[in-house]
Amino acid sequence: MAVKDLESRALRITNGELFILDQRELPEKEVWLPVRTPEEMIGAIRSLALRGAPLIGVAAALALGLLAEYQPDKEQITRKAMALRSARPTAVNLMIAIDRMLAYFETTGFKHDLLMAEAIRIFEEDVELCKQLAQRASEYIKDGDQILHHCNTGGLATAGRGTALGAIQTAWEQGKKIHVWVGETRPLGQGARLTTWELSRMKIPYTLICDSMAGSLMYQRKISKVFVGADRIASNGDVANKIGTYSLAVLAKHHQIPFYVVAPSTTYDPNCQSAVHIEIEQRKPIEVLEPWLRQDIPVYNPSFDVTPRGLITKVILENKDL
Amino acid sequence: MAVKDLESRALRITNGELFILDQRELPEKEVWLPVRTPEEMIGAIRSLALRGAPLIGVAAALALGLLAEYQPDKEQITRKAMALRSARPTAVNLMIAIDRMLAYFETTGFKHDLLMAEAIRIFEEDVELCKQLAQRASEYIKDGDQILHHCNTGGLATAGRGTALGAIQTAWEQGKKIHVWVGETRPLGQGARLTTWELSRMKIPYTLICDSMAGSLMYQRKISKVFVGADRIASNGDVANKIGTYSLAVLAKHHQIPFYVVAPSTTYDPNCQSAVHIEIEQRKPIEVLEPWLRQDIPVYNPSFDVTPRGLITKVILENKDL
Repeated sequence: MAVKDLESRALRITNGELFILDQRELPEKEVWLPVRTPEEMIGAIRSLALRGAPLIGVAAALALGLLAEYQPDKEQITRKAMALRSARPTAVNLMIAIDRMLAYFETTGFKHDLLMAEAIRIFEEDVELCKQLAQRASEYIKDGDQILHHCNTGGLATAGRGTALGAIQTAWEQGKKIHVWVGETRPLGQGARLTTWELSRMKIPYTLICDSMAGSLMYQRKISKVFVGADRIASNGDVANKIGTYSLAVLAKHHQIPFYVVAPSTTYDPNCQSAVHIEIEQRKPIEVLEPWLRQDIPVYNPSFDVTPRGLITKVILENKDL
Repeated sequence: MAVKDLESRALRITNGELFILDQRELPEKEVWLPVRTPEEMIGAIRSLALRGAPLIGVAAALALGLLAEYQPDKEQITRKAMALRSARPTAVNLMIAIDRMLAYFETTGFKHDLLMAEAIRIFEEDVELCKQLAQRASEYIKDGDQILHHCNTGGLATAGRGTALGAIQTAWEQGKKIHVWVGETRPLGQGARLTTWELSRMKIPYTLICDSMAGSLMYQRKISKVFVGADRIASNGDVANKIGTYSLAVLAKHHQIPFYVVAPSTTYDPNCQSAVHIEIEQRKPIEVLEPWLRQDIPVYNPSFDVTPRGLITKVILENKDL
């Protein structure tokens, strides 16, 4: 059975082959990498060629679907699913997507030729989810807003139009005149490289800043709202997101600036009671050292931080607020 | 009359020639640049080959002293003094040092051959000032402290041992076991490149972080104190310092962590009533864009921010606290 073609800003399937846009090369180059195996997908996730919690879940499901399509071996599919599941410990979407694939596999009596269709449903649902989410979240954006955004939460982070950046896009399409302050998001520059690239394509006005400049802008009353995404939301509403989010939340609180987290319900983890239960991935020193020096010195490089619910004005999901 | 040799971590005079350590090349290379004219000194200050408010004042005075030594022309000395004075608008030390040189020039009946001696006194006084300042400020550091530091405030920022980093050095020499969290200080990485270099030389334990990680560390109670320097202190105690300082002050306040500003009284500007009167230098986009992309996009790049006195636990000068 032929695999259906599909396309988003960050990945595509053409003639049964999966390609991802290598986000490490953006914005200088648009390189589409073929991803032929679950191992290659794990490598792409770990190296951040592909990132964004919702996108990771969708992409892992597609990689598993293609494996089932081309190498129909029940044991292997289950084993590779478990490997994919653990590629990014913070992204609960990844676990939810893979668990759903496995449950479906079992329910259908291990019919490998049905698995790709389930992966495509996960993809299409994410597109729809993003649309609903952006629509709801855009209601919190007013004409004239000066929005601070952290990391990347657009079409490069999901299968659809994104979460926080999706809401910004929708507000812009509604004709609201807005301006986005883009936090560069050290150490890997997802804001500087990816969000500016997406905003440029959409012709939404923006200004890039270093992460350390946000406080001073708030003090000068140049920021009216903060919009960020989430990598995981605990059942008490605490949020794990890209490192730097917590600092922005404290700064927003101090300046009485509304702080919104925009995320699909696939990011919500009912089994996680609070932020203290969220495992924070520690990454390599080279990511921090790279612009500055070659020698090896002590570096602290957590990928995420946690923001307590009390610092967040609203956690906006596609169907409700938390 | 032969010009006396002198030497500090950041500059030296050898056989009547002034050299500065090119701080843009640190820590990879130790390049000593000859500075032969006031124009070259202005270039070195503007390009940040030489930086740190106290050091700039000392270096500019030495450049003027050498000019008087080798090209004794009253008109020219006065004209070049005014040019040097405006090389870095935020650094009040620079204005104080040059004004003192000019006043002395006038008082001595424009005796050009006395001017270099006055510049050397400014150098030597800064060394002594740093020592007293570090001694006083070190009393606020206790055994076991985990100190967050921003930018560079050591022997590379002054003629002496520095301000905030000088206090850390003195506390370490007193046998206090401390650990320094070094904020990288985007966009130019004075923390990542210069402070880690100085701490390594002094064998003081440290860990480098991105500026956006400070909040998360405070939340985890891994920071017990914040020590920073100052580029200018207003008469009400407001402080202008490297961009990012204000964010750290708000974060420290939120977490009830003491926040100390350590600076010589030459940084204090009695004619400046409050932070709103401090001119903030805007620098080129390339500094922010450099690690990420080559194309030209909108960037906000202020060199400094202002921290209101209310967020500061203590402003420590060499002879009193504010």
